[in-house]
Amino acid sequence: MRSRWPSGGGCEGPVTPFARVTIVGVGLIGGSLGMAVRRRGLAREVVGVTRAAEAIAAARARGAIDHGTLVLEEAVAGADLVVLATPPDAVVPAARRALPHLRPDAILTDVASVKGGIVRAIEAVAEPQGAVFVGGHPMAGNEGSGVASADAELFERAVYVLTPTERIGPAAVARLADFARALGARPVVLAPDEHDRAVAIVSHLPYLIAAALVSVADGAAGAAGPAFLGATRVAVSPVELWTQICRLNRAPIAAALAAFRSELAQLEAALDDRDRAGALLERARAARARLGAARGEA
Amino acid sequence: MRSRWPSGGGCEGPVTPFARVTIVGVGLIGGSLGMAVRRRGLAREVVGVTRAAEAIAAARARGAIDHGTLVLEEAVAGADLVVLATPPDAVVPAARRALPHLRPDAILTDVASVKGGIVRAIEAVAEPQGAVFVGGHPMAGNEGSGVASADAELFERAVYVLTPTERIGPAAVARLADFARALGARPVVLAPDEHDRAVAIVSHLPYLIAAALVSVADGAAGAAGPAFLGATRVAVSPVELWTQICRLNRAPIAAALAAFRSELAQLEAALDDRDRAGALLERARAARARLGAARGEA
Repeated sequence: MRSRWPSGGGCEGPVTPFARVTIVGVGLIGGSLGMAVRRRGLAREVVGVTRAAEAIAAARARGAIDHGTLVLEEAVAGADLVVLATPPDAVVPAARRALPHLRPDAILTDVASVKGGIVRAIEAVAEPQGAVFVGGHPMAGNEGSGVASADAELFERAVYVLTPTERIGPAAVARLADFARALGARPVVLAPDEHDRAVAIVSHLPYLIAAALVSVADGAAGAAGPAFLGATRVAVSPVELWTQICRLNRAPIAAALAAFRSELAQLEAALDDRDRAGALLERARAARARLGAARGEA
Repeated sequence: MRSRWPSGGGCEGPVTPFARVTIVGVGLIGGSLGMAVRRRGLAREVVGVTRAAEAIAAARARGAIDHGTLVLEEAVAGADLVVLATPPDAVVPAARRALPHLRPDAILTDVASVKGGIVRAIEAVAEPQGAVFVGGHPMAGNEGSGVASADAELFERAVYVLTPTERIGPAAVARLADFARALGARPVVLAPDEHDRAVAIVSHLPYLIAAALVSVADGAAGAAGPAFLGATRVAVSPVELWTQICRLNRAPIAAALAAFRSELAQLEAALDDRDRAGALLERARAARARLGAARGEA
């Protein structure tokens, strides 16, 4: 399995547009994807599948889709790229419904922030039908939700993880990587479980920490400065999504929590020891400074 | 002891300028204070005390001071406001040196982010000399350090905690509160130990968490998204300052860590239980949303 983090840059040649991109679930991510695809000319047509008729009008008004429908089977039938942008719990059911109607050359992908279980479940049903499913996770978002918060620039500079298994040929992966680059994102190929361990640490753990920190602060929050506000901003994102993530990625999250507790205990034991605390904090400072430099932070 | 968090607004009448504000230690905070005082006309003269001659030139070049000197005793002699803006460890020694030379009507304050020990140590020597010391903590900063990172707008909208004890008359506190408002900040009066408990939670705890999080992330940091970057940004600030804070505020930090661990353990125990996790996370979401609204976040 190839596995690499992007070093930035990368060649962004012209991308052959898709004929029809169908987005199932036109919320924050699906809506942003549609807006970006349309603005950047990455498809001749973007079709959205929503659960309610009003959502179609809202998605069109934001410029996220050309057409909308409530009928998934109809919308995926002619598409050469189908993106399942539903909440994580709904990805596998949506894939099961979509697969029998896909064109043989279509690529099916998703945007869920947990991959192992989803990839295994979909591959088990996809292979017999000859369709290609490549798990995806554009690591982007904001504190909003729904198509009202969608943003055509959401994927700009974001890491876009793809999690093909060894069953997937390189052409489909390369096509999706080109698509991610065309969105302004940086594609990264990881094994599904490797992805889940990484996001448990860099995404799910910080969220749980932020929630715990807010709960601890309570009455003292009036004194909160930029560090507290920055550390806890993610805690305002919709809870329903996170409870799904917590359940689907429970084991990697538990491992991340254990590692975090151990680091924090080391720091606490060193609070009184200037040299020891200094060494631990300096290691963290240097690591964070390198990360900031790699991400072009000021 | 009065104790309140600002609700925003507040009456900002014209402020009588100080004749001479002397700033001991012209780094990020001292330099920003000097720049703000000069730009807003809050003193007829700003004098800076530095440890090296080159630092005087740098502070003048940034517009942080009118004059500079290496001789603390000389600089504080004619001042009606003396701000000790040294690192926390150096505040008490600087106060001891300054006190014998202060005008009888002068106000002495500091900017250290830990207050209990410093206030007790300075009051013990100040009272016999008749001088007025009011502990201060402008809760502002950025990821830089030194006068090069100073910013005249640093205190805009920041909470500025004042920690007078019952020995301090209301006039000096009111004068400093007016000064804080004139800097664009929101003055808050707290008992020194109450301040230390609050900052342990909203400032020192998030810093230690950020450092632990960066250390855990290590190889996975390549996948870091906005939540991780936001949660860990504070970890790049200078370690030397933090090791002093950790030592000076050890007990409140230990209590904050214990409370945080307990919240996080509750969350972990609920990972698999959608309703229980949802309730805990929703409580945090609502609290963080209220805080964001109070701070005018988008």
